[in-house]
Amino acid sequence: MTHKVAILGASGYTGAELVRLISQHPTIEIAALSAERKAGMTMAQVFPHLRHLELPVLCKIGEIDFTGIDLCFCALPHKTSQEVIAALPQDLKIVDLSADFRLRDPDEYEKWYGNPHAALAQQKEAVYGLSEFYREEIKSARLVAGTGCNAATGQFALRPLIASAVIDLDDIILDLKCAVSGAGRSLKENLLHAELSEGYHGYAVGGTHRHLGEFDQEFSKIAGRPVKVQFTPHLVPANRGILATVYVKGDAQTIHQTLATAYADEPFIELLPFGEAPSTRHIRGSNFCHIGVAADRIEGRTIVIAALDNLTKGSSGQALQNANLMLGEEETTGLMMAPLFP
Amino acid sequence: MTHKVAILGASGYTGAELVRLISQHPTIEIAALSAERKAGMTMAQVFPHLRHLELPVLCKIGEIDFTGIDLCFCALPHKTSQEVIAALPQDLKIVDLSADFRLRDPDEYEKWYGNPHAALAQQKEAVYGLSEFYREEIKSARLVAGTGCNAATGQFALRPLIASAVIDLDDIILDLKCAVSGAGRSLKENLLHAELSEGYHGYAVGGTHRHLGEFDQEFSKIAGRPVKVQFTPHLVPANRGILATVYVKGDAQTIHQTLATAYADEPFIELLPFGEAPSTRHIRGSNFCHIGVAADRIEGRTIVIAALDNLTKGSSGQALQNANLMLGEEETTGLMMAPLFP
Amino acid sequence: MTHKVAILGASGYTGAELVRLISQHPTIEIAALSAERKAGMTMAQVFPHLRHLELPVLCKIGEIDFTGIDLCFCALPHKTSQEVIAALPQDLKIVDLSADFRLRDPDEYEKWYGNPHAALAQQKEAVYGLSEFYREEIKSARLVAGTGCNAATGQFALRPLIASAVIDLDDIILDLKCAVSGAGRSLKENLLHAELSEGYHGYAVGGTHRHLGEFDQEFSKIAGRPVKVQFTPHLVPANRGILATVYVKGDAQTIHQTLATAYADEPFIELLPFGEAPSTRHIRGSNFCHIGVAADRIEGRTIVIAALDNLTKGSSGQALQNANLMLGEEETTGLMMAPLFP
Amino acid sequence: MTHKVAILGASGYTGAELVRLISQHPTIEIAALSAERKAGMTMAQVFPHLRHLELPVLCKIGEIDFTGIDLCFCALPHKTSQEVIAALPQDLKIVDLSADFRLRDPDEYEKWYGNPHAALAQQKEAVYGLSEFYREEIKSARLVAGTGCNAATGQFALRPLIASAVIDLDDIILDLKCAVSGAGRSLKENLLHAELSEGYHGYAVGGTHRHLGEFDQEFSKIAGRPVKVQFTPHLVPANRGILATVYVKGDAQTIHQTLATAYADEPFIELLPFGEAPSTRHIRGSNFCHIGVAADRIEGRTIVIAALDNLTKGSSGQALQNANLMLGEEETTGLMMAPLFP
Repeated sequence: MTHKVAILGASGYTGAELVRLISQHPTIEIAALSAERKAGMTMAQVFPHLRHLELPVLCKIGEIDFTGIDLCFCALPHKTSQEVIAALPQDLKIVDLSADFRLRDPDEYEKWYGNPHAALAQQKEAVYGLSEFYREEIKSARLVAGTGCNAATGQFALRPLIASAVIDLDDIILDLKCAVSGAGRSLKENLLHAELSEGYHGYAVGGTHRHLGEFDQEFSKIAGRPVKVQFTPHLVPANRGILATVYVKGDAQTIHQTLATAYADEPFIELLPFGEAPSTRHIRGSNFCHIGVAADRIEGRTIVIAALDNLTKGSSGQALQNANLMLGEEETTGLMMAPLFP
Repeated sequence: MTHKVAILGASGYTGAELVRLISQHPTIEIAALSAERKAGMTMAQVFPHLRHLELPVLCKIGEIDFTGIDLCFCALPHKTSQEVIAALPQDLKIVDLSADFRLRDPDEYEKWYGNPHAALAQQKEAVYGLSEFYREEIKSARLVAGTGCNAATGQFALRPLIASAVIDLDDIILDLKCAVSGAGRSLKENLLHAELSEGYHGYAVGGTHRHLGEFDQEFSKIAGRPVKVQFTPHLVPANRGILATVYVKGDAQTIHQTLATAYADEPFIELLPFGEAPSTRHIRGSNFCHIGVAADRIEGRTIVIAALDNLTKGSSGQALQNANLMLGEEETTGLMMAPLFP
Repeated sequence: MTHKVAILGASGYTGAELVRLISQHPTIEIAALSAERKAGMTMAQVFPHLRHLELPVLCKIGEIDFTGIDLCFCALPHKTSQEVIAALPQDLKIVDLSADFRLRDPDEYEKWYGNPHAALAQQKEAVYGLSEFYREEIKSARLVAGTGCNAATGQFALRPLIASAVIDLDDIILDLKCAVSGAGRSLKENLLHAELSEGYHGYAVGGTHRHLGEFDQEFSKIAGRPVKVQFTPHLVPANRGILATVYVKGDAQTIHQTLATAYADEPFIELLPFGEAPSTRHIRGSNFCHIGVAADRIEGRTIVIAALDNLTKGSSGQALQNANLMLGEEETTGLMMAPLFP
Repeated sequence: MTHKVAILGASGYTGAELVRLISQHPTIEIAALSAERKAGMTMAQVFPHLRHLELPVLCKIGEIDFTGIDLCFCALPHKTSQEVIAALPQDLKIVDLSADFRLRDPDEYEKWYGNPHAALAQQKEAVYGLSEFYREEIKSARLVAGTGCNAATGQFALRPLIASAVIDLDDIILDLKCAVSGAGRSLKENLLHAELSEGYHGYAVGGTHRHLGEFDQEFSKIAGRPVKVQFTPHLVPANRGILATVYVKGDAQTIHQTLATAYADEPFIELLPFGEAPSTRHIRGSNFCHIGVAADRIEGRTIVIAALDNLTKGSSGQALQNANLMLGEEETTGLMMAPLFP
């Protein structure tokens, strides 16, 4: 049985990544692709790497007939997404890739995003889309909110450790290194090749990055009390990849064993042998997350490093994984491709 | 029905690329992987990006039992390959990725490679592995010689034009831009990141590159008389991709139409609309070749540009395409994945 | 004696490069820096790499008092430059880095740039700024038009060969590979890191690049009859550098000797030993141009390759070289820094 | 008055960087260049970017007449350096760029480097070469040991904070991001472009990096009691640059003020305005170190980020700065060039 899907916001990187992944999916068919400013164009014109595919012409959202659409991916900008989703049929299954439905508390949403939420009804029913930890809720959800790519990486490293209380909850430092595609296809001076290539820097330094809202929500929920992590992202000259170096206080062997147990049956989470460190080059273009654990020379200090592809496992791959769950498909369908190296 | 294959030389880039591609192939199973100097190691140790796969441990060639192996990929260094293949069972189907069996004339082989051929019996039966042009021969071949990656790119741009005599055969210039993975995983100073990144240069300037042997052989055969092209490769700071800018004398519209006719039914060759130029970023990691044609401002001059991924369509993807033909599978099986962009 | 200069358009890459170079010049002092949209900001805010320098605050052009300014660099966008220069004091020495005054024939200007020239009086007196070939005229010029960066590279390879008629004038092909900073700090999708990195492509294919106007003008003037070259630029994933691979018909040894003679006393032009090919990595950040010559295997065909840094020798370095000439300084002052490698 | 210098180990990156810097120095002249395996070659052959310079031909160390040499730079591999220096004239001024003389305690040396020290007499007299903090000792030193590039970066961020006790000495985390030229021109698989480009990873994870020996020595000395920092380096796909993100416990404004006071008169240390973060792109090719300070959202936590060029300020620039001091020159001579951006 084939499921028909629509992709809203198909002219951005996460939209294109969804098309790439779904093109290999045996039972999902793309029935509609929207892109407001590029309506009327073909995907081959917007993304020449997809020119071999037979795809619907890009249209405006208002032109889509959602009858017969089984699921809709929203790869729209933050804030736009909530407005669009509020107006979509209320029985349509939706996987949202934006930040709009990630935070359960509307006040937290407003604090981090600067505006009151415009789709409170939908916000209430949204399920947080970190598949490995919300699998059952996602299966029966109507609206799933894809996690932030940085937030996903940090959570894969930390959730089992917080849940089992094997680390000091008050002294967690996440130093992230992010590739540039996470910033999307937007025209900003600091995303130009001439600016980024051969240079790297920290940004949102001091705890101002919006993904902290997700960390706070999720970690506090798991711990049953407020947990605040210190989180500093850095932009590095690469296109895909997030590497989260997490500094925690706790016994390294215990931490490794805790992660081993938590992820023993997870198809996409690969825990490396103790002492090995992952690299973004080894997960590029795939839905895998590699995690490594090492003991520091200072007793009681442990380094946990997690790596994933921000566009795949961090965004569109996760979205397809969730769609599989919502549509009753095998969770891994269309997602087992090997990473591209070199 | 499942076909069992062996991959000899699995610790190089083309070997790893074969594993990546075959991991998604529904009817091919990897039964053996060899790597002389890394025998005893797992692929996960040599190529951590493949750690999610269940694969045989690396072994020495001499340890492989070829009974029950349906086809063998040889991803060995030049010269080693002919020695190994001479000693393999003589009824074993082989796809060779080295340069050893590409040239039909042993004298030409010696001229370009500097040593007498050591497997003349096998050399006689080898079929040139450019799938789109030797499809029928490949189906019934025992030994297929994969083409050079640069040679493949140039031929996709030029073969139909030479066959139909729509260009001046005595004035063909190929200016190629190659990414670094084409040089393999060898330890050479000029392949270091610090040397290559942020710089580019021509090499083998003046017509000394070995792939000229293939161009001479194939183009002269098609034309029915000697054809010698001028060919200058350049190394650019990227990991995957070959871009061949071909300068020819002939009418641009006729040339575009000739290519359109020749490639109308080819699943992997995408001819762009007249006047558009392809980019390596749009074929990365895929088995597609994009070709563009434009008229120069000087009457009677035409530019043809072809782009492909040297490790996929230029090497391991082509090898799998040929294996599909030799094993009676659909030619495109396991090869229709979309390119990875960005 | 110190010369005071102004730099108009200091917020672009060529403006910043001028500041970098002049900061090491013993007798030139920056008296004013303009940037219309960033007026009021410091250079440290716009270009943090220059924060160690004491520099004037950015202002609007209208705020500059040109009394006491000995020379003005115009690093403004095309078209804006001519309007600004028409309104500047008519006895002010000017080095213009834009394309506005390069073409001697106003009709040619309009053909390539699409608008009638708005400063015909100034256009008449402008001297073409290729220092090595217009040295004497530049010394006494009031207004010097900096050459295009691609145009400079091609001319260094070809001018002496055309002048001495050692090549076929009707069959010259320039295949250029340009780094991205040549496109400036403008917000265009195709200049984003995620778009450019790991990919390369031809553009302005077919003879539509504006620098052809310069090639036509200069080569025809030298030859004393119309000369039209074929010119195809390619964008490669690097920040600085132009590599021009020039395919000519003529004897390679004669060509090498002709260039050796022509450039024997030039401080910035380095002719490599016969058969060697230059690389952009070896001229980065410097005012040098490296040229190599090799014979093709096809008799009578020669490859000439020239490499320079588009922002230095191709633009701001050349501009300072010309300013030195105009101000009576040693031509090489402040320009002999070694390239940055790796 | 001109000082004659020799550079031992001129075929590596730090050797070439010394030549680049000295080529602009008004009073230092290169009298000899050694490279054991490349003796007899010219620098133009080994480093074509230096071909415009008139330099001595590369020779073996044994061939150098040290009479008349005022100072010798040793850019030799670790361990080789101590053997060579033990055999050099004992009144020759030496700036050593290797790790051999950095640690004051021979036991610590053996612990971190794995072999007993082979030049204990010289080791005793060596002065630690962090110019900003050992200025007076360096002026009168005979043998100066250049610091490790990572060690220098971390110390610029931390020394004044430890000295004034404004941070918790028992909870310091250094997360470093290093470019690849720091690993030198050695032939290792993980330094290949195809391996490194588009990927990044942590290494020496857990406190095994040798520069920890320097941190331990210097920080403990300043504090007057043992101080052990946690230090994890990461390799990122860039050629030059080190970015040290330092996580400390202490008041951010106090920390910023402490650094401002400490570096008020330092010509090469640029403290950014409070809250701003430095980038490696803004110090490339220069001798500057940029430092930023920001308060984390968690009270009492501060992030200090330092950026410098590993080959310049982290190695050869520092070496020249020390040579200036030892030769009685102005400390900044030949070192004030602006960074290269983009």
